Amino acid sequence: MALMRALQKRSAGPGLELCEVDVPKIGPNQVLVKIEVAAICGTDLHIYNWDTWSANRLHPPVIIGHEFAGRIVQVGKNVTGLTEGMLVTAEGHFTCGRCYYCRTGQGHICDDVKILGVDTDGIFAEYAVIDAGNVWPLPEGFDPGVGAVHDPLGNAFHAASAHCLLGKSVIVTGCGPIGLFCIAIARHSGAKLIIASDTNEYRRNLARQVGADYVVNGGDEELETVVREATGIGADVLLEMSGSSRALRSGLRALRKGGAASLLGIFSDDVSIDLDAVIFKQLTLYGINGRRMFDTWYQMKAALEGGLDIRPVITHKFKLEEYAEAMELMNSGRCGKVLLIP
Amino acid sequence: MALMRALQKRSAGPGLELCEVDVPKIGPNQVLVKIEVAAICGTDLHIYNWDTWSANRLHPPVIIGHEFAGRIVQVGKNVTGLTEGMLVTAEGHFTCGRCYYCRTGQGHICDDVKILGVDTDGIFAEYAVIDAGNVWPLPEGFDPGVGAVHDPLGNAFHAASAHCLLGKSVIVTGCGPIGLFCIAIARHSGAKLIIASDTNEYRRNLARQVGADYVVNGGDEELETVVREATGIGADVLLEMSGSSRALRSGLRALRKGGAASLLGIFSDDVSIDLDAVIFKQLTLYGINGRRMFDTWYQMKAALEGGLDIRPVITHKFKLEEYAEAMELMNSGRCGKVLLIP
Amino acid sequence: MALMRALQKRSAGPGLELCEVDVPKIGPNQVLVKIEVAAICGTDLHIYNWDTWSANRLHPPVIIGHEFAGRIVQVGKNVTGLTEGMLVTAEGHFTCGRCYYCRTGQGHICDDVKILGVDTDGIFAEYAVIDAGNVWPLPEGFDPGVGAVHDPLGNAFHAASAHCLLGKSVIVTGCGPIGLFCIAIARHSGAKLIIASDTNEYRRNLARQVGADYVVNGGDEELETVVREATGIGADVLLEMSGSSRALRSGLRALRKGGAASLLGIFSDDVSIDLDAVIFKQLTLYGINGRRMFDTWYQMKAALEGGLDIRPVITHKFKLEEYAEAMELMNSGRCGKVLLIP
Amino acid sequence: MALMRALQKRSAGPGLELCEVDVPKIGPNQVLVKIEVAAICGTDLHIYNWDTWSANRLHPPVIIGHEFAGRIVQVGKNVTGLTEGMLVTAEGHFTCGRCYYCRTGQGHICDDVKILGVDTDGIFAEYAVIDAGNVWPLPEGFDPGVGAVHDPLGNAFHAASAHCLLGKSVIVTGCGPIGLFCIAIARHSGAKLIIASDTNEYRRNLARQVGADYVVNGGDEELETVVREATGIGADVLLEMSGSSRALRSGLRALRKGGAASLLGIFSDDVSIDLDAVIFKQLTLYGINGRRMFDTWYQMKAALEGGLDIRPVITHKFKLEEYAEAMELMNSGRCGKVLLIP
Repeated sequence: MALMRALQKRSAGPGLELCEVDVPKIGPNQVLVKIEVAAICGTDLHIYNWDTWSANRLHPPVIIGHEFAGRIVQVGKNVTGLTEGMLVTAEGHFTCGRCYYCRTGQGHICDDVKILGVDTDGIFAEYAVIDAGNVWPLPEGFDPGVGAVHDPLGNAFHAASAHCLLGKSVIVTGCGPIGLFCIAIARHSGAKLIIASDTNEYRRNLARQVGADYVVNGGDEELETVVREATGIGADVLLEMSGSSRALRSGLRALRKGGAASLLGIFSDDVSIDLDAVIFKQLTLYGINGRRMFDTWYQMKAALEGGLDIRPVITHKFKLEEYAEAMELMNSGRCGKVLLIP
Repeated sequence: MALMRALQKRSAGPGLELCEVDVPKIGPNQVLVKIEVAAICGTDLHIYNWDTWSANRLHPPVIIGHEFAGRIVQVGKNVTGLTEGMLVTAEGHFTCGRCYYCRTGQGHICDDVKILGVDTDGIFAEYAVIDAGNVWPLPEGFDPGVGAVHDPLGNAFHAASAHCLLGKSVIVTGCGPIGLFCIAIARHSGAKLIIASDTNEYRRNLARQVGADYVVNGGDEELETVVREATGIGADVLLEMSGSSRALRSGLRALRKGGAASLLGIFSDDVSIDLDAVIFKQLTLYGINGRRMFDTWYQMKAALEGGLDIRPVITHKFKLEEYAEAMELMNSGRCGKVLLIP
Repeated sequence: MALMRALQKRSAGPGLELCEVDVPKIGPNQVLVKIEVAAICGTDLHIYNWDTWSANRLHPPVIIGHEFAGRIVQVGKNVTGLTEGMLVTAEGHFTCGRCYYCRTGQGHICDDVKILGVDTDGIFAEYAVIDAGNVWPLPEGFDPGVGAVHDPLGNAFHAASAHCLLGKSVIVTGCGPIGLFCIAIARHSGAKLIIASDTNEYRRNLARQVGADYVVNGGDEELETVVREATGIGADVLLEMSGSSRALRSGLRALRKGGAASLLGIFSDDVSIDLDAVIFKQLTLYGINGRRMFDTWYQMKAALEGGLDIRPVITHKFKLEEYAEAMELMNSGRCGKVLLIP
Repeated sequence: MALMRALQKRSAGPGLELCEVDVPKIGPNQVLVKIEVAAICGTDLHIYNWDTWSANRLHPPVIIGHEFAGRIVQVGKNVTGLTEGMLVTAEGHFTCGRCYYCRTGQGHICDDVKILGVDTDGIFAEYAVIDAGNVWPLPEGFDPGVGAVHDPLGNAFHAASAHCLLGKSVIVTGCGPIGLFCIAIARHSGAKLIIASDTNEYRRNLARQVGADYVVNGGDEELETVVREATGIGADVLLEMSGSSRALRSGLRALRKGGAASLLGIFSDDVSIDLDAVIFKQLTLYGINGRRMFDTWYQMKAALEGGLDIRPVITHKFKLEEYAEAMELMNSGRCGKVLLIP
């Protein structure tokens, strides 16, 4: 039996181990993918750091990781439309297909979802098994780094596309990779004005690079003041990507009446907000979870083909065995998207 | 100069005074209305009780009240389309007509709004001056009690019409008059199931009368449990009319994934909510302010003509001079909508 | 091998034959259903009459029919969630699951759809094979006649739900079963006013019975005049169910500016319309095809549970062997929905 | 009394006359504007050529023209917010303010609209009177040529903004100025792909210049073939700006299932279309009239501030007295937008 290298959470507690494990076997409705490029998600970092969420959710041993581009090397017998050699990435949420949500085009909130690299073995490895229905083929010659970040780019599209951003003044709070993708999308969509905030200088510089007109240090400056000066009446749209209650509150204050916000950043705790202002200002708040399957994927594909360039967001590349260095870089925040090459 | 009786807040502090004052004079774009029926809003009660909001906003002396039906008795010289003798009510928000919001069909969030009976002399009086553009004619023979409650009924329509309620399972938290109107609207709209909650037994009985299928004592029973049992996956829509953070939190928990809430009840303080659940459940929250001018009014008119019956919500009628008794009844909560007859 | 009775189109040309054929065998993802009640669709009548469309599309021999309620008597080995004895109906469009439309919640316009009773053997028989993913369970004790008409009722819901009908003035042109369902839905949704038109007196009487306020003889009276008198400015919504270009043209003329129409009736030929009026009146036209899978089904279920009553639309019941009589009745137009009992 | 030069239709029949007339007087709610740049609309050309529409609508003598930029030189006594010296343009539809449409944010389809330069004296003159509520201030230093074409640019925005064009494949049939604006807007909005068609070579070249990816000779090539090759499944959106029934029909055929079209070009006659394809393909058709007042204007302002460049569409500039030459150039079609300088 063939072996492969893989990054495994072997037991409860911080850290990961680079192991040799069996190459996994596919079922009739699955494909085996040779991973060419993986990308590290904030979720992977949480698992590495072993936070409360991870301790409650993960059942070691499990190979983690869910963002990738790779090539199909084996195809299950019931699978149609996919062939060996295809360059692909995948939606990492495996849905049940039978619940109310799955049957009404809302698979992203499926009642019985399993997540790649969390509930099943993931893709920080040489090979991984993917359900055929989740595979997303990439055009031959496609940049595999961009391919590897389709999952978080999809989050950004899902949050951004709750609004039509043409001519809009847009606040993006939180300039991690998804926030940076949001900025790039807003720019590509003809936004009038983009104001970004983050307490991290490295990421503020990236924000400028992908198209923010104003960049605010969430920790030192007043977002609301900058937005008022730039827009007069307040911004049209807030894309909350930080999970910081302080950022959320100033973002909501900086919205004009009748404005709207997409909330994607996770807050860990209950958040105290001025709902009366939401009411008096007639705001709309959209909770955003995952990516629409597969509306968001088609939209993403179309925007990338139409010239959207998100490559500046990808800042670092490590070998699989350098995972600890990569994780610590991510803990430092001095990076955009970080790739791992198996 | 003719005199009239009017309920005036004469000076800072609780209470009102029944005074004799001059019948007001109209400008060229206004009409004078003889008030036939007035209705007491929660706002009027706040002013009577002299809460913090009132103390900050009101500049006595001012005649209060803004919900009414009456007849036009004098018409300004520039006014067209309105004539003496017409039975009318009115939108109580006087808008500037020039701001971004006014120029884009969003006058309900005008930047320079003045409110009848708050910023200008109101309608708890024999006569009142109304801007012609705010007048809403009622059909001859229309029930003047129903006419007098168009303003809060419009709030309910505004909150309800953020959703298409046909076939929906709907939670209404808070069974004051606006919550009761929401229940009646949901029933009339073909809602599948209506679950109402209030801590007040009198109002829970009214809720059943206007069409709620399940009525929960917000203080004793678990709204979420009832909703889960009645719906399986949670409700589609929450109409939050209570301004109680506890009701809001259980209402949000009781929503299914992908559900939506209209928030209209005012909370006075910041509210601590589980935004992560909003995000993971992909909920949408709509802040609702006032009534669309005049989309909501046309919608209300059409629904009333189409058979919507909100008369059970109107439970008491007092003479103008019995105002103190009426206000105390409202303070007790043992009433629906209370009318005052000048 | 067990035999069953079935209505088959045995060869090109008008008519059907009642045959004895093998009870069909199910695949691993299918169920076998014992048909309790079938309903005749206009499509079945076209096939019986052998019109041009049928001659081009059908490949005899084929058992026709796709509207039914029945009980599962056998379950394929991969099927979960369905059990023997369940009362069910089904969506008659078998979709590919892989095309752009299927992957974006638009399976009703799948690129590779197969239709039950047209492209595969249908349900005018004692037993029929149904793909498990298309089965729609009905509550135990559900009226099987209502169960059998879910497919056309779904068409009506799809057309109606392009609009929120609360308070709307609604024109329904064409009072065949789907038009009649539309009238019942509009009434249940709180429409202000419903104006229906048909040249057939029997159906105009049914239209009144399910809730139309005004019923116009499309052949003799002027729809536009009636609508203008009833509404003043024209109707808000047109639901075009007739496939008559004359009805469509008067329906569009009778819409107010800013109004909207759902088009479901098929016209056979190109239609000449006054598009300049569509433009100057700022109308929106929605082409409506099939039923959303399965949003429309959930909506339908909820409305039926919420009290929508469409039983008056079902006017006749025949035994399977009386099919010729049933078809001729339908050719006469003196009926609503016609059931066949195997 | 001061005199000014103006282009007047003096009597029924083709042509215009350059006259000396009194400088018009303003009312209390109006301003007097000194015209700096006028632009010629297709409507002006129809009036010059004296087509059937003009003969039925115009009541000579009337000064024509409605597209302009100029400076306020006098302000009516009731006017607030506008001052002498401001650079402005204006919405040319004077609305009643009292009808259903005006009261629901749909003034663009007002029941009693009057059009500048058609129903009232227009702006092909040194001075013109404009209702204060219709004035649209331009930033100081704004390109007056771009200012002068806000009216048709607004038409393009109104048509385009029925859709969110990010990532969409877009067909624009008809490359007159409004079609060219649509192409520029689609490009600015992040459209994936833009396919334009026109029978006029000069305009096809302009289409390429403002951002079309494919440009089709409507008269010689098959739009549908090009769209199918470029998109695979058909285009997402059609913006019909030609008023050619042939272009409309091929545009509709070239749409994918579930696609949508904005119809703005006027057809003069009834148009025969394949509505069954509209139905089976589940298309949506939007009739587009004028510009939303003033949503579209704010959107336009925001997009121009955000970098939308429509200057290449403006190809020619004439002195007022060269009007005949300008009109004949427009009759030839060898131009984009043509300006007149009083």
